[in-house]
Amino acid sequence: MSSTGVDKRKRADPDPVASIASRMNLREGEEAVRRVLREVHRMRKVGTKDLARGARLPIPVTAAIRRELEKGGLLRREGGAVLTPEGEAYVTEVLGLVWGVNKAPAPRDGGRSPIPDEYTEMLERLRTLSELRPAAMPQLDQAHATPETSLRRALYMQEEGDLGGRDVLFLGDDDLTSVAAGLLKVARKLTVVDIDERLLKVIDEVSMENGLGIETVCHDLRKPLPEGLMGGFDIVATDPPYTVSGLEVFLSRGIEALRSLKMSTVYLSFADKPPLEMLEVHRAITGMGVFVRELIPRFNEYVGAEMFANITSLMRLSTTEDAEPAVKGVYEDVMYTGEVNPTVRVYRCRCGAEVTVGAGETYGTVEVLKERGCPSCGAHEGFSLRRRVKLPGGRR
Amino acid sequence: MSSTGVDKRKRADPDPVASIASRMNLREGEEAVRRVLREVHRMRKVGTKDLARGARLPIPVTAAIRRELEKGGLLRREGGAVLTPEGEAYVTEVLGLVWGVNKAPAPRDGGRSPIPDEYTEMLERLRTLSELRPAAMPQLDQAHATPETSLRRALYMQEEGDLGGRDVLFLGDDDLTSVAAGLLKVARKLTVVDIDERLLKVIDEVSMENGLGIETVCHDLRKPLPEGLMGGFDIVATDPPYTVSGLEVFLSRGIEALRSLKMSTVYLSFADKPPLEMLEVHRAITGMGVFVRELIPRFNEYVGAEMFANITSLMRLSTTEDAEPAVKGVYEDVMYTGEVNPTVRVYRCRCGAEVTVGAGETYGTVEVLKERGCPSCGAHEGFSLRRRVKLPGGRR
Repeated sequence: MSSTGVDKRKRADPDPVASIASRMNLREGEEAVRRVLREVHRMRKVGTKDLARGARLPIPVTAAIRRELEKGGLLRREGGAVLTPEGEAYVTEVLGLVWGVNKAPAPRDGGRSPIPDEYTEMLERLRTLSELRPAAMPQLDQAHATPETSLRRALYMQEEGDLGGRDVLFLGDDDLTSVAAGLLKVARKLTVVDIDERLLKVIDEVSMENGLGIETVCHDLRKPLPEGLMGGFDIVATDPPYTVSGLEVFLSRGIEALRSLKMSTVYLSFADKPPLEMLEVHRAITGMGVFVRELIPRFNEYVGAEMFANITSLMRLSTTEDAEPAVKGVYEDVMYTGEVNPTVRVYRCRCGAEVTVGAGETYGTVEVLKERGCPSCGAHEGFSLRRRVKLPGGRR
Repeated sequence: MSSTGVDKRKRADPDPVASIASRMNLREGEEAVRRVLREVHRMRKVGTKDLARGARLPIPVTAAIRRELEKGGLLRREGGAVLTPEGEAYVTEVLGLVWGVNKAPAPRDGGRSPIPDEYTEMLERLRTLSELRPAAMPQLDQAHATPETSLRRALYMQEEGDLGGRDVLFLGDDDLTSVAAGLLKVARKLTVVDIDERLLKVIDEVSMENGLGIETVCHDLRKPLPEGLMGGFDIVATDPPYTVSGLEVFLSRGIEALRSLKMSTVYLSFADKPPLEMLEVHRAITGMGVFVRELIPRFNEYVGAEMFANITSLMRLSTTEDAEPAVKGVYEDVMYTGEVNPTVRVYRCRCGAEVTVGAGETYGTVEVLKERGCPSCGAHEGFSLRRRVKLPGGRR
């Protein structure tokens, strides 16, 4: 944000992050060089050991990158590594790293610690905007995350350096995490792909009115990503259907969307399932050449998901150069929870009547039941879930 | 803690946790029943939704377990689930759940949040005891965790219900996590298996003097666990050699040590490695039928480990009924870092002399160099690590 004009000088190397990563043949790819620059920018002056710690890289790798950045004129040593004016310009104006907006540490433990005061206003705004969301469609595995959750996600991504100056793709976004990210005003590009036109219309309007610049694409992820989105992003975020196939399809599309596979990040929300199903999920992840770098249980809270006590985990996944989508081309099989494990739910009205809700029933969702009213007493609210009944033919 | 004598009445069912899990054919095993009891004990009175949330189980499963516990006379409903006197006695005296000792939430973010005040004295004691540890042996991949880290680990395990009333096995423990756990005085059994007799002697002494009741077993984990330890534990904790084979060997022994595989917990510390190596590590974990339930980066800090900026991750792994050790019988191959990736390190003395340190060199470790003094000027301190040199023949 400082040093105007410096970037207009022709830099000897137009893309030092890429050229250093390639010259050093770094196993961590460009991400490693970027992290070193980001840490120096954040700490202003930093010794090699703290730099390695902050960048989460081994000390020798960090020291070698630092030396290359010194040679390139972006860093100099002054009782620690500091950015040169050219480095400062590159980091803020080309890489788009804006550390200042995120002063308090991002709360990582879900609902246990509060959202920092400085974001109270943003949270209020997000609450208001969230009310514009169309009703969740359970047949698409939609379940709205609370505004607090969306904001926590965005703050966490920002703290990890995954929003500032980045091109970020949201694969499905009925949670409006893109809007929370947009309000932080640090990303280079925010794109939402969703099958739900109603939702995209709301995001478009909110984005327009608030100057968030979110791009929306209506697309069924059972089909491969549109050509124009392939390989176009630094970061992917998704809260897919909580089935093994849902995960495989969404994560496969996510891998295809990434610009580099060496060490890119995918934010993945997923529910706690019984042990053998969780094992399948984790095997699907490692099977695609991706691994868990951080996993925060109970990070996400939802307003509508009754069965998992309204709480799911958030994983920060890292890709590797061996990453490969499990699903290529059109996905023809079942994927949504209602398809994979067909169930109906039995609700009880306050009048005592029990009403069956589910795909293929008179009331497809509880929202429809509420709208039409209890068939016995006509009430539009006061329904409580009694039980789930599995239909034959289900499979994962 | 309360209700004395009640446990002396013959309970209709001597092991309700086991019999309910078996009768309900729970995919989460006995652990699920135990968690429900633990949450009711902790919350005193709790509705089903909050109970499910606390126990991290789906609501229908939670509700069904609650009903079984009511039938068995351990719970009753009173504007929420509460323990009956018989339930209270069972939970505290048979299961050994002692919630009270852990009032403040355990700090989960490594060094970022402080250890709660109520543990200041315990931390001081642990600091004093840690000074008794023999010097770390890098050839065994020893690197002492800080006393803060050991205490944080113990508090985290306790908060997860994995110490109170549990039989816990530490596979290698130069970190003295067993001592930190012992000071909390809640576990039923604490056992340490280590190859280092010097270390076990210290643990024995500390345990004796402080009444911690820690059992120690001198054993090389390249060999299968001693018969008497097989299948004898509820929980395993390990900070293995940071190689893929080190992980495989230690986790395999850990799986063999568990009483039930359905949903038992293994605490695994591991360093950040380059992406493809991390992928191998995670594939080894899922390959053994185990998955990551929580992964906290930068949880562990060490006093001696120079190369990873003194910081590693802590994973809470869950086993499944499909869990199977990758290594059975005697492990004949290389496992320690120095064997897998043979390297020497070059230190520089303040006098300017460079000294090569490593297996097969005059100075096997920097500790030996410090003891004998710089070959050029004789100084016993002031050595800084300059670089690592890989020797030919290394492999993972």
